[in-house]
Amino acid sequence: MPVFDHPFLSGLLGDDAVAKQLTAEADIAAMLQFEVALAGAEEAEGVIAAGSAERIGAAADAFSADLAALNEATARDGVVVPGLLAQLRKGLDAETAQALHFGATSQDVVDTSFAMRTVAILDEIGGRLAGVIARLDRLEARDGNKTVMAHTRMQAAMPVTVSRKIASWRGPLMRQAERLGDVRRAIGILHFGGPVGTLGALGGKGPAVAQRLAEALGLDLPEGARHAERDAQAALAAWLSAITGSLGKAGADIALASQQEMDEIELSRGGGSSAMPHKVNPVGAEILVTLARFNATLVSGMHQALVHENERSGAAWTLEWMILPQMLLATAAATRTADGLFQSIAFVAID
Amino acid sequence: MPVFDHPFLSGLLGDDAVAKQLTAEADIAAMLQFEVALAGAEEAEGVIAAGSAERIGAAADAFSADLAALNEATARDGVVVPGLLAQLRKGLDAETAQALHFGATSQDVVDTSFAMRTVAILDEIGGRLAGVIARLDRLEARDGNKTVMAHTRMQAAMPVTVSRKIASWRGPLMRQAERLGDVRRAIGILHFGGPVGTLGALGGKGPAVAQRLAEALGLDLPEGARHAERDAQAALAAWLSAITGSLGKAGADIALASQQEMDEIELSRGGGSSAMPHKVNPVGAEILVTLARFNATLVSGMHQALVHENERSGAAWTLEWMILPQMLLATAAATRTADGLFQSIAFVAID
Amino acid sequence: MPVFDHPFLSGLLGDDAVAKQLTAEADIAAMLQFEVALAGAEEAEGVIAAGSAERIGAAADAFSADLAALNEATARDGVVVPGLLAQLRKGLDAETAQALHFGATSQDVVDTSFAMRTVAILDEIGGRLAGVIARLDRLEARDGNKTVMAHTRMQAAMPVTVSRKIASWRGPLMRQAERLGDVRRAIGILHFGGPVGTLGALGGKGPAVAQRLAEALGLDLPEGARHAERDAQAALAAWLSAITGSLGKAGADIALASQQEMDEIELSRGGGSSAMPHKVNPVGAEILVTLARFNATLVSGMHQALVHENERSGAAWTLEWMILPQMLLATAAATRTADGLFQSIAFVAID
Amino acid sequence: MPVFDHPFLSGLLGDDAVAKQLTAEADIAAMLQFEVALAGAEEAEGVIAAGSAERIGAAADAFSADLAALNEATARDGVVVPGLLAQLRKGLDAETAQALHFGATSQDVVDTSFAMRTVAILDEIGGRLAGVIARLDRLEARDGNKTVMAHTRMQAAMPVTVSRKIASWRGPLMRQAERLGDVRRAIGILHFGGPVGTLGALGGKGPAVAQRLAEALGLDLPEGARHAERDAQAALAAWLSAITGSLGKAGADIALASQQEMDEIELSRGGGSSAMPHKVNPVGAEILVTLARFNATLVSGMHQALVHENERSGAAWTLEWMILPQMLLATAAATRTADGLFQSIAFVAID
Repeated sequence: MPVFDHPFLSGLLGDDAVAKQLTAEADIAAMLQFEVALAGAEEAEGVIAAGSAERIGAAADAFSADLAALNEATARDGVVVPGLLAQLRKGLDAETAQALHFGATSQDVVDTSFAMRTVAILDEIGGRLAGVIARLDRLEARDGNKTVMAHTRMQAAMPVTVSRKIASWRGPLMRQAERLGDVRRAIGILHFGGPVGTLGALGGKGPAVAQRLAEALGLDLPEGARHAERDAQAALAAWLSAITGSLGKAGADIALASQQEMDEIELSRGGGSSAMPHKVNPVGAEILVTLARFNATLVSGMHQALVHENERSGAAWTLEWMILPQMLLATAAATRTADGLFQSIAFVAID
Repeated sequence: MPVFDHPFLSGLLGDDAVAKQLTAEADIAAMLQFEVALAGAEEAEGVIAAGSAERIGAAADAFSADLAALNEATARDGVVVPGLLAQLRKGLDAETAQALHFGATSQDVVDTSFAMRTVAILDEIGGRLAGVIARLDRLEARDGNKTVMAHTRMQAAMPVTVSRKIASWRGPLMRQAERLGDVRRAIGILHFGGPVGTLGALGGKGPAVAQRLAEALGLDLPEGARHAERDAQAALAAWLSAITGSLGKAGADIALASQQEMDEIELSRGGGSSAMPHKVNPVGAEILVTLARFNATLVSGMHQALVHENERSGAAWTLEWMILPQMLLATAAATRTADGLFQSIAFVAID
Repeated sequence: MPVFDHPFLSGLLGDDAVAKQLTAEADIAAMLQFEVALAGAEEAEGVIAAGSAERIGAAADAFSADLAALNEATARDGVVVPGLLAQLRKGLDAETAQALHFGATSQDVVDTSFAMRTVAILDEIGGRLAGVIARLDRLEARDGNKTVMAHTRMQAAMPVTVSRKIASWRGPLMRQAERLGDVRRAIGILHFGGPVGTLGALGGKGPAVAQRLAEALGLDLPEGARHAERDAQAALAAWLSAITGSLGKAGADIALASQQEMDEIELSRGGGSSAMPHKVNPVGAEILVTLARFNATLVSGMHQALVHENERSGAAWTLEWMILPQMLLATAAATRTADGLFQSIAFVAID
Repeated sequence: MPVFDHPFLSGLLGDDAVAKQLTAEADIAAMLQFEVALAGAEEAEGVIAAGSAERIGAAADAFSADLAALNEATARDGVVVPGLLAQLRKGLDAETAQALHFGATSQDVVDTSFAMRTVAILDEIGGRLAGVIARLDRLEARDGNKTVMAHTRMQAAMPVTVSRKIASWRGPLMRQAERLGDVRRAIGILHFGGPVGTLGALGGKGPAVAQRLAEALGLDLPEGARHAERDAQAALAAWLSAITGSLGKAGADIALASQQEMDEIELSRGGGSSAMPHKVNPVGAEILVTLARFNATLVSGMHQALVHENERSGAAWTLEWMILPQMLLATAAATRTADGLFQSIAFVAID
């Protein structure tokens, strides 16, 4: 069972706040929100009959997914949307059932749901980054003037202040925090193109419906549907890996500095051993390294997924689903772990 | 939520049979089995008091994990074993509590539990491989003499028989099937070394206890504990990725051959579209490509984890936990998908 | 022999213009430029004796490296700078030899040389991107109104205009072009911190020397030395991989569209076969996919290198040297290949 | 310029003995050897006219490649063989020119040349592995009984003997040495299938020609051409990465143990610093980590290349050329570095 929702590993490696955005429930809720908002936009533009949106909204409100059936349908269709719509249509009259999802395609729904929830996750991670940076500021305020030994190429070099050490942890985090806005803008867009990205079924009404839909969902409207343009997803992955990599550097430093023989950092808390009660293991520091290497591994797959053939690649798109949620979770876990770790360390000045 | 136990993606991308070996429950059961067998071995060698093993066995039988507490303990200790032992010791008298896990270390328990369950998974995957190969044999028996167009560098080249095409799918699978024994032998070993790999607490009894323990658990006994030697895990990852890569090649071929314009393969079933009812999407073929690229991504992380510093690296070891179970699941999903796919295709001879 | 400077593979996979920035000669020239400019800055600030800079400049002008000796020294020291300085000092009097490189460290020289040359490469790649985008504009002007079949999940879906197809190739490239400024700013900085990043040997003169040095070399001056902060390098790698990935998507599309059975794109030139003279292989299209997957592989290693322990990690830093130049070359090769490919294709309208 | 043949980095990161098997010259020589042996086999089987083989042999002996023209041809064709044959045919009469390469395809030549040279490289690496293992035996004979501190999770744990430490370095290397035979057998095969893998042009003579050709080149003959079955290449990559990963573990241990504060290992030689003459940098140990992470990165790309579509994928095949030679070189560099490093270390017993 993967670690992020594992009964006893999720506390170490997962993150509750972000995980709840990535549940099937949250996904279904966002997909329903898309369909309801789409109906509203299409009704307003006269594409579907008056009253459709209200009926679709009511059906969505009353909807309770048959997850087993959805699972089976997704195994067949490769995507949840046809099965989800089939279930939702059971609560609709025939005409409204036709109006539901009119002109849209599965990828519109899935990608927009992901965008909506990822924006929320990015806000959470942005807040965490600010918190971690503030934590480092406080650590510097307390320990920054202490002198410790710098190490280059794994050898003691010359003394430096703790401020210098902390700066090398904080700088990359500050720069990732500055980039958050760009990442968020690129991700926070509406995906709406219909079967082949042209909104063909909507005739001339496509742009107006899209505009209304984007507004209703609080997303930006790009010039064309980005079904097959996945640079924002790859850039998100790289940004996440830059965060975990930067925290992994701090983790590696702390693990090295808290070696007893080095005694440059004291941990006020750490992990216990089943066999050696005298040890205080720098678990948080190690986990930051783990999460860094995990994301550094996965970022490759997200770049492989850029080779997204034709107007929609089932192969490349599904690969994103397997990778990107994990990277979000690993990054959230890293910010959470770093916050606790930076709180629990104290530098020891050399004499 | 990662895909493998996702409410509506697991049917597409997960695998029930293998997933059940990777649950927390299965892990705890195997860890308890280790502790009970260890007590038996140590009692037989006079390392712990007579009767200890029976009492530990009874406690294990009666044990019901407090998962929330385990999760919290694992978040602190970086590994579940100290928390698990603390819970288990509540059902033991003081002396037996001391005897429990005597001379062992957390990694012994976790790695051995993984070894036991992975052997079972390998047997399952081995059976699947044989099934897929048999499926290809039947496909060849039916369609092998048909003539289809070979394509090199994405261009029609010259006609070949379907047998030739099938041979290029089956050959790599047969070679992976042949390697299964080696992979299984390397994985199916007892991990038992105590805190620093030397079984120091057991004095001269270490080897005898280890021998009994390995026999009780049906595992081979290597010459020394392999806490920090992770080549078997990396080789397993590479083997899994070789399977998914070989199936991914078949998936890519089938997706190409089932393009309508190519019309070399007909799919008797496929995925439906939310917007284009005329389409039969080669979902299974695409998913094989996805799973191939997923494992090809992750195999890198397992090789990074070979850089396992000192006698035990929390950072590198935890990275294995994040990656290897997913690779097992992805491989199982691929064999399952391939089996269905190879059943559902028919080659169309060129005139 | 790696492909980029291979006698018969470099025409296919390398790039002359970028390769010349990555030769040992260009590196040595930039490193000498650093040392001469450093001497100028230090003399102006009174850190080293008047006349030193002129003598160092003259020695640099007259310098001819003994490459065999440098190779041997680098094998010993792990970095070329000590050996290079030793050779350069042979042309200097004792006092000036002391003044040379005063207060600096090897990483200052190596990283700054890389920054200087990478800025030039980025300018080249930026120009190429603009050229490729313009090429796509012209292609659209000619073929944009033609109707071709869109394909989703490898199945014919509905007709779209060629404009729509081209938009999905151009969009990601335009967005990478927009990001060039950020990438260039992050890379185009002076690396100057001395042994442990504090410019300790320069006393209070450090900032003033750094300011002069940055100006002399046309680089920005960051707040602190970034010896151990490698986010700019990782971001560069991700940006390069985003370019090759976007071009790889176009390559995959073109390879698919130029299948004879598809006949959606005609290639006016392609590769010949040693055995099948009738074939026109879409070599350029395939190579774009190759380069995309190559960079998507390597981007992982650059993110692993973010875990840069302590004040300087020989292990992580050297990993950058092995990876980043290749990514620059692969990206240059991709832009060159794309330019030729986009020139050589013509869309075929469906009837 | 990539590091392996870099004027001043190749001493640190390259390997002369292996590099010479990977030059263009060695490749051309092996390709000519293939063509000459093929002509011999075909003449013996009466496929081509008597005397052809001698004339082709004479032309090959006299052949001097025009590398600039080859580079240009390869850029066009995507593979060197058509251009090479065109040059070679200039020295042949028309009939013999027809006989040259009869029934073969470019991939036969390129893959067989790679197989021939890789077998030689594997023998070299095998010898190195044996040497490194012997070096560790001698180190153990000298220092094995010393007691040093074991470290788990980066914390001092309990004392162990140096023998225990060395065993964790040697075990994985011994296991890779044992696997060499399998790897070599899988790689050391003839690639000979003609345009679409069926040797169609040779009629019933295909198998006999193949048998003679395999014998002449000292390679095994597989049941069918493996143009599109790349599991041997992926397995080779994984094996190489297992070696560098195992050596990287030793490198990480040595770098940690030679921290002054740890003082568990003394280096009799190391790298000098441009700024801190007091330091002895554990350059070799760091480089082992670098090479491990490099190969662990690249192994992913070789697994991506398993998705080798149809009868020959230009995209996937070319990716192998970009990656596998580098992995061979990195592994050779690692064995060379390890040999020197293990010679230069001495363990320091704790009191």
